[in-house]
Amino acid sequence: MASKRVAVIGASGYGGLQTLRLLDQHPGLEVSFLGGERSSGKRWSELVPFLPLPGDPLVQSPDPAAIAAAADLVVLSLPNGLAAQMVPALLERGLRVVDLSADYRYRSLEQWKEVYASEAREVPRSDDQLCGQAVYGLPEWHAEAIRGAKLVAAPGCFPTASLLGLLPFLQQGLIESQGIVIDAKTGASGGGRAAKEHLLLAEASEAVAPYGVVGHRHTSEIEQAASQAAGQAIQLQFTPHLMPMVRGLLATIYCRLRDPGLRAEDCRVLLEAAYRHAPCIEVLPVGTYPSTKWVRQTNRALLSVQVDERTGQLIVMAAIDNLVKGQAGQGVQCLNLMAGLEATSGLPLLPFYP
Amino acid sequence: MASKRVAVIGASGYGGLQTLRLLDQHPGLEVSFLGGERSSGKRWSELVPFLPLPGDPLVQSPDPAAIAAAADLVVLSLPNGLAAQMVPALLERGLRVVDLSADYRYRSLEQWKEVYASEAREVPRSDDQLCGQAVYGLPEWHAEAIRGAKLVAAPGCFPTASLLGLLPFLQQGLIESQGIVIDAKTGASGGGRAAKEHLLLAEASEAVAPYGVVGHRHTSEIEQAASQAAGQAIQLQFTPHLMPMVRGLLATIYCRLRDPGLRAEDCRVLLEAAYRHAPCIEVLPVGTYPSTKWVRQTNRALLSVQVDERTGQLIVMAAIDNLVKGQAGQGVQCLNLMAGLEATSGLPLLPFYP
Amino acid sequence: MASKRVAVIGASGYGGLQTLRLLDQHPGLEVSFLGGERSSGKRWSELVPFLPLPGDPLVQSPDPAAIAAAADLVVLSLPNGLAAQMVPALLERGLRVVDLSADYRYRSLEQWKEVYASEAREVPRSDDQLCGQAVYGLPEWHAEAIRGAKLVAAPGCFPTASLLGLLPFLQQGLIESQGIVIDAKTGASGGGRAAKEHLLLAEASEAVAPYGVVGHRHTSEIEQAASQAAGQAIQLQFTPHLMPMVRGLLATIYCRLRDPGLRAEDCRVLLEAAYRHAPCIEVLPVGTYPSTKWVRQTNRALLSVQVDERTGQLIVMAAIDNLVKGQAGQGVQCLNLMAGLEATSGLPLLPFYP
Amino acid sequence: MASKRVAVIGASGYGGLQTLRLLDQHPGLEVSFLGGERSSGKRWSELVPFLPLPGDPLVQSPDPAAIAAAADLVVLSLPNGLAAQMVPALLERGLRVVDLSADYRYRSLEQWKEVYASEAREVPRSDDQLCGQAVYGLPEWHAEAIRGAKLVAAPGCFPTASLLGLLPFLQQGLIESQGIVIDAKTGASGGGRAAKEHLLLAEASEAVAPYGVVGHRHTSEIEQAASQAAGQAIQLQFTPHLMPMVRGLLATIYCRLRDPGLRAEDCRVLLEAAYRHAPCIEVLPVGTYPSTKWVRQTNRALLSVQVDERTGQLIVMAAIDNLVKGQAGQGVQCLNLMAGLEATSGLPLLPFYP
Repeated sequence: MASKRVAVIGASGYGGLQTLRLLDQHPGLEVSFLGGERSSGKRWSELVPFLPLPGDPLVQSPDPAAIAAAADLVVLSLPNGLAAQMVPALLERGLRVVDLSADYRYRSLEQWKEVYASEAREVPRSDDQLCGQAVYGLPEWHAEAIRGAKLVAAPGCFPTASLLGLLPFLQQGLIESQGIVIDAKTGASGGGRAAKEHLLLAEASEAVAPYGVVGHRHTSEIEQAASQAAGQAIQLQFTPHLMPMVRGLLATIYCRLRDPGLRAEDCRVLLEAAYRHAPCIEVLPVGTYPSTKWVRQTNRALLSVQVDERTGQLIVMAAIDNLVKGQAGQGVQCLNLMAGLEATSGLPLLPFYP
Repeated sequence: MASKRVAVIGASGYGGLQTLRLLDQHPGLEVSFLGGERSSGKRWSELVPFLPLPGDPLVQSPDPAAIAAAADLVVLSLPNGLAAQMVPALLERGLRVVDLSADYRYRSLEQWKEVYASEAREVPRSDDQLCGQAVYGLPEWHAEAIRGAKLVAAPGCFPTASLLGLLPFLQQGLIESQGIVIDAKTGASGGGRAAKEHLLLAEASEAVAPYGVVGHRHTSEIEQAASQAAGQAIQLQFTPHLMPMVRGLLATIYCRLRDPGLRAEDCRVLLEAAYRHAPCIEVLPVGTYPSTKWVRQTNRALLSVQVDERTGQLIVMAAIDNLVKGQAGQGVQCLNLMAGLEATSGLPLLPFYP
Repeated sequence: MASKRVAVIGASGYGGLQTLRLLDQHPGLEVSFLGGERSSGKRWSELVPFLPLPGDPLVQSPDPAAIAAAADLVVLSLPNGLAAQMVPALLERGLRVVDLSADYRYRSLEQWKEVYASEAREVPRSDDQLCGQAVYGLPEWHAEAIRGAKLVAAPGCFPTASLLGLLPFLQQGLIESQGIVIDAKTGASGGGRAAKEHLLLAEASEAVAPYGVVGHRHTSEIEQAASQAAGQAIQLQFTPHLMPMVRGLLATIYCRLRDPGLRAEDCRVLLEAAYRHAPCIEVLPVGTYPSTKWVRQTNRALLSVQVDERTGQLIVMAAIDNLVKGQAGQGVQCLNLMAGLEATSGLPLLPFYP
Repeated sequence: MASKRVAVIGASGYGGLQTLRLLDQHPGLEVSFLGGERSSGKRWSELVPFLPLPGDPLVQSPDPAAIAAAADLVVLSLPNGLAAQMVPALLERGLRVVDLSADYRYRSLEQWKEVYASEAREVPRSDDQLCGQAVYGLPEWHAEAIRGAKLVAAPGCFPTASLLGLLPFLQQGLIESQGIVIDAKTGASGGGRAAKEHLLLAEASEAVAPYGVVGHRHTSEIEQAASQAAGQAIQLQFTPHLMPMVRGLLATIYCRLRDPGLRAEDCRVLLEAAYRHAPCIEVLPVGTYPSTKWVRQTNRALLSVQVDERTGQLIVMAAIDNLVKGQAGQGVQCLNLMAGLEATSGLPLLPFYP
């Protein structure tokens, strides 16, 4: 079977770089178009000397017609607000799109405008219908819809780790809907490749700090998916922390069991069952806690649970690589499903340790 | 006024090294005895070429009589269980002791034996009375008792950060006693200087992971002090995480306000008032969140609060240097009080940034 | 073609872990035996929860007969001195061996005994003949011999990077044989997985220091290969430095050009020609300098040259991943050749950046 | 004696931050003016919440008359080219200046224009006379001149470490003037606080790479001082490398002994003698090699020597903190001398380890 042709737009950011690396030697997908606004016209090797690509392609201006001529599928790795400028034209030309930005993660344009108010002020959008049609690209929960989707909005690192840990318990109604706390820890690459003072090594190394406390944008995205799974409105506490490391994301989730008799092993079995057919999820034995290092540069999510029988609290821990399962690997997993391939095609699942 | 003479026992571990560094050029305390079991008889410079001490003293066997001849005050920086082997003999000789271990942090020997069961099996102890007399060495809450104490049990990094953040709210009855979550993040030096595989740079760098989930030893210590402040039994969730950095500790504390009308600014004012006379505590403006880097190598604790008006949750953040305010600096702060000096004598409060 | 069966002895150290990771999904080699002395009898997942292997095999005692029954090829990842205890018995049973230790890297047992004197005192050896027969496993220089070898002594990280940079110039007689300086920088994983104080994150992070200045063991190994290529005895300066990072090795090599008219571009062309058929070597354009990050977790070596026309000095820079091209990947590259496969089979050549 | 009043211009960069931290509680100097172009009019605490200063001063526009009214001494921590715009006006008003930039490090304006060609194009300068009068602010070699100087050009981290190691041997004529190699390793804070992609934690962590190979600007500055000490023109090889850490600088210097009979201990004694009266320099025993961690956040330089008797090479190692002895601490050391204080007043010499 011939490989599907994939266009990667926004190739030299971290999302793009990971996508290209994952598609190199992919058994069923091949990169046929490299798009970038600022870097258009340049040879790839000039921009990125450390990731030689076959034929050293030119980066091209992301013109929809040119993309449509070269590709079947498109991955957009662009800043929030910019993807929405391209998606309608790409869909019109029959392309199928995986968007790594937040532009289509909400079911309504209105909600996006509320949460991404600054982007909304700069970018006129009226594609409310597309927002409603886009599929939320979390393959462990929406594989069937992704397979047939034209537009997939792949969730980023924080919602991915948080939801993989929470959804099974919410869906089964095993935890209280109030008082859920997600304390999340992310590596500095989550802030992207654009230079920012607070992400300098000199600033971010030997430092741990919270940010966006109360009201971080991803709170509403997590709540949207959590509410859908629970069948009721969920409001929760999400607090991200910046870690002094390049990659990796850990979500430590605290919630209260409805049935105080449940033990950690029961909860583990439930997780195991929920993800029985999810090849990228591994549930650890009770008492083994996930390290972000164990999933570094893989598309795997590691989950673990513990229960405090004194307090009735359930603690769910989820570790992923923020740039793979939390971004580009998720995108490739979606592409795989859209192309009729195995979900894990071309995706590394084992780490190079240490 | 002549300086008080201080013996430092266990000098080449991290607690000892920090203590010696802080006492170098201290205006009212001077090191007069260096004690160590394994290293006794060696010149200090052989053991620690990077911290030259005046006169390059010999490390001596920690014999109580010799210590009493040389010193007025003693800092013990020894593994749990070993301090209790020395303390009675030191007190008998009129020495006043600051113990950096956990041996006297519980009000009863029985509770210590329960929590430190493995140490208790190896070390016979019957000093229940001393446990009852020892003062818990958190100067911001027990300064008066510390001033007059013969034996001070200085709390370590996790309880210090957690309690500094929690106690004002518990004491005022402003938060619910149930459902308190402390998500703590510590640098690798908290694990001490003895070689352990999981603390190797190759293992612990580029990694974030929880450990001791449910039932970590410090849970009970935090609960003891929290219950005392609240005037009722408190059970809470404490989860430590290992960070890929040398120093620093952040506690992110989640709890529920009793009065849903309280705003973040109200909570900040309350903290400010609680610590008005505490020169090592600084309360940040609402919206400014503490980084462990801001307190690196200082004896300062930075506190910040935020309130989620949707959920009624209060989030308290506390950052300290785990080896200074969380260990040796705390010990020196106690020594200062015991010696009738200013609490902050010789203690750095400003970081070298970055 | 059926896969060749490989036994990996010493599986839970860093060399073993990398080897297993590289052989997972290798197109022509499969792991058929996991050997370990201390861990024999345990399930793999108990030892290494983060690298699940198909069938979760038992670790077995490394008995030569059992290995011979299960495998065609053997990779030994053992401390210096221990490999030599096993190799004769393995060869006798017809197994072909890649040894990642230093035991067979010298052409004579006598020289090994001189350099590895402490090991030699503990381990009786009389296999001088095997030392003479063993092939030095640097595939870019000895591919033909490796293909037919029974025993391959794969060089480690320091000699690999140093020799890949130096040999072309020595062989062509373009540099002076005296005054060569190799200033090498290695990540902390090069020190292995056994717990040692100086490799703790708290000690090795935020620190750069030289070690083994003058007379480091690898000096003689590098000199042996350099002398052979130059056709004359070479004595050089090799100084390793420990870097605050997990993986990666950079050798900065300073030497003097014989012909002062040579420019950097000439030297680049020479390197390019020397490695024309070496798929794991990439020569960078003049003015682009290699970062260890660019080869992280790959089997690639990046080389770059610069010439100071004022001083007549040539500077050669070589970056590799110390655990892949500098250890386990090198071993797999040798296995590939021995098994009649492409040199790069199963070996990653592109990094996940960042 | 009343404290001398110091103006710090460029206060929120790393040089300024260190200077302010060092002058906090300095026994003989006090900060009386905070100057900054972009931040003028702001409260200090708005800019730098983590370094509270007494009275929370306003940052002021660096007007020479205002500075002269407020201060006796000035520290300029500005980008290259900008200091020269202010210095003449400051000197005219009788202020004495320590400049942390490169503007006055060369004895002639012409040479500065050659090396700092891009700055020279943007900034018109005709202060050749001042270049000739400025004192090179390396207190271990020019203390007397610094004491009386009106304008001191304090050398930065690379020249400081390199020259402290080299000068004693050059001055005594003990090493050959040709073939000197300086392989230098610096922490990322050396690149300053302005956001640059290659200094992001995600880019610079887990990475070691050379830069500026051949012709780095500091080569000529080191050569100028080396030639002066040697009494003959010195051309040497200087290669900086970026390390994955915040602070610290190590220079490993390779050179050839003129007298092949000299041993390491001889060279150590020579260094010891050269720096007998230099309180910030410590010469380590032969066989003990300096770690940058041993001088972290101190104004100390650690030196060590080793000799390879086979090759006749001398290896000198010098470790400093790039922002203290390599920048702001050096500046304060110069201020101390200019103010008639002890060279080490207010300067930390012992590290907080680890």
